[in-house]
Amino acid sequence: MQQTRLDTARIRAARRVIDPVFLGTPLYRCEALEPGLGCAVSIKLETANPVRSFKGRGTEVVASLLAEHGPRAVVCASAGNLGQALAWSGRGRGLDVTVVASRFATAAKLDRIRALGAGLELVDGDHELARERAAAIARYDGIRLVEDSLDLETCEGAATIGLELVEARERAKPEAQAIRAGLTDLTDLTDQADQAELAEHAELPNPAPPFDAVLIALGGGALATGVGHVLKALAPGVEVICVQPLGAPALTRSWHERRVVTTDSTDTIADGVAGRCPIPAVLDDLLLVADDAVLVRDSSIIAGMRMLLDHAGLVVEPSAALGIAAILEDRDRFAGRHVVTIVCGSNVDGDAYRRWVGAAGLPHRV
Amino acid sequence: MQQTRLDTARIRAARRVIDPVFLGTPLYRCEALEPGLGCAVSIKLETANPVRSFKGRGTEVVASLLAEHGPRAVVCASAGNLGQALAWSGRGRGLDVTVVASRFATAAKLDRIRALGAGLELVDGDHELARERAAAIARYDGIRLVEDSLDLETCEGAATIGLELVEARERAKPEAQAIRAGLTDLTDLTDQADQAELAEHAELPNPAPPFDAVLIALGGGALATGVGHVLKALAPGVEVICVQPLGAPALTRSWHERRVVTTDSTDTIADGVAGRCPIPAVLDDLLLVADDAVLVRDSSIIAGMRMLLDHAGLVVEPSAALGIAAILEDRDRFAGRHVVTIVCGSNVDGDAYRRWVGAAGLPHRV
Repeated sequence: MQQTRLDTARIRAARRVIDPVFLGTPLYRCEALEPGLGCAVSIKLETANPVRSFKGRGTEVVASLLAEHGPRAVVCASAGNLGQALAWSGRGRGLDVTVVASRFATAAKLDRIRALGAGLELVDGDHELARERAAAIARYDGIRLVEDSLDLETCEGAATIGLELVEARERAKPEAQAIRAGLTDLTDLTDQADQAELAEHAELPNPAPPFDAVLIALGGGALATGVGHVLKALAPGVEVICVQPLGAPALTRSWHERRVVTTDSTDTIADGVAGRCPIPAVLDDLLLVADDAVLVRDSSIIAGMRMLLDHAGLVVEPSAALGIAAILEDRDRFAGRHVVTIVCGSNVDGDAYRRWVGAAGLPHRV
Repeated sequence: MQQTRLDTARIRAARRVIDPVFLGTPLYRCEALEPGLGCAVSIKLETANPVRSFKGRGTEVVASLLAEHGPRAVVCASAGNLGQALAWSGRGRGLDVTVVASRFATAAKLDRIRALGAGLELVDGDHELARERAAAIARYDGIRLVEDSLDLETCEGAATIGLELVEARERAKPEAQAIRAGLTDLTDLTDQADQAELAEHAELPNPAPPFDAVLIALGGGALATGVGHVLKALAPGVEVICVQPLGAPALTRSWHERRVVTTDSTDTIADGVAGRCPIPAVLDDLLLVADDAVLVRDSSIIAGMRMLLDHAGLVVEPSAALGIAAILEDRDRFAGRHVVTIVCGSNVDGDAYRRWVGAAGLPHRV
């Protein structure tokens, strides 16, 4: 493929500087979800870590580089998850972290940013205004601006999820099964570490079929370009599908029109992916790695959140249900296939969650 | 220490036959829980897998041995989690699995056992009657009876959690930090694999202090004797605390009196740990590895479930909240310490969960 800004060797190296608490996250088939979706579904769970989202993978890369040779002060704009993750990663390395967020951001996210000791500045506007303000602070104070999705560390940190997906897929392949059963040797496999890991497990009798599509929440684009880059490089047969809310469609529209399209406003409950102004360099990368970008209704996101609660026991934030929403809106497309959805965050306000998922809280079993 | 029935080398070997989907589960500090508990708390999350409990670790060992040389038919009594896990592990290996359960068992658990293709027989009584019936089926049909906690595979499978805890604790030690920083070499460490893993990570700047206590749900005893054995063998300074509901206190009372004590009935919402008739051999092991066994009220279990939902975003079944309940009931004991609690299952009926955690579902943020 044509070259994205990302580099697979750097992504492999990123795993060595990311705190292991963010790595090797669960990937498991969730059969209880499947009757309602009509396809095999595996969950890549990015919420069981100290910041309850995948963003720690990227901020660990950012903060470890800064701790080595960068300035000790850093500022970012965030809908909440990046800020929380940067606060966590920065705290451990003695960095001075400032987060700029919309005053309409999810309160639970803002509370955690404060609790982690970061400075928090609220702007009276949306995420794009927070981005402008963060850039102004960086210029004025001469400190490092971390720009989500533009800064390669944020993309390449997120891309380590892709490495884990590819490795798991290798393990599930029939030839890997044969290797495990002693029917062949390991020399055909690409990666020494993969071989060692495969050899370690004598058998794997309950495999899912190798997945053939990955559904990725599309916000600024770090997660989609990161995971997409790795999949296109190492597992090009896997379909990379980005999912964005209908009420925040700027990057999806940009992808379809192959040029930056902005919107005047956003209207979605999926606060984590509600941008209006796509970054040109990120769009260029996305054009190289995404096979499709689709828009889903908030009602489908809510249905997805409800299914994840009911059948997987997972409380998730709206952006983490985008993948399930995409299946619900286009069952025919996925029928009979094996789809991975990245459950990317669980930072949600309890009151809002209850309002969305149902006044009665946990809905009745279906 | 005196010898339990368990063997550390066999526990290490068990990791090679357990499907990796059950291994290397998240262990992470959950700071949002800490203001309410007064101590550092880390969660070992055993719910993000195809059966939503830790039981798959044991049933993978059981089923892989049976697939190699045992009978192809197997029966177990279960409150639901063991049966679901055995159904999963057996399905992958072509085993014929029968599960005997109380007709009062959690419906969500019974539904999943059926969905996984196991035969399900319900008895009109409690878990002890199910145990008797399973034993009778095994005798009559000449098939293998899997007895949870008595069969070493169930204990040694669960014990692999202990290996993961010990390895994480080694990584968090100041000397490991020093190694990572290049201040010393790796030769003092016990295990080659640990050394390699430590060397892989250049830095780990956000460590929790090494934990000094582990809270373990006590039911039949497989989890407690398994994890306890490994901790006492490899990290003897860590306090091993078993937690059981006041309404199902048989094994805890037995531990305190150092003889088997049975009860006539149980009365607790924690269905997964509600036994009445402790197994003598399991008690003997527990006497060797547990530092304490405590009883907690169901109201504390519910408060723990609510805290895990509110502050960790985790839906758990009652037995998985026993550890948090123990902290809530004895804050002074844990003040200022770092405690690991094993979140051992999330198979819960939605209606019951809503009833316990609050009619309004997700409670308001505090």
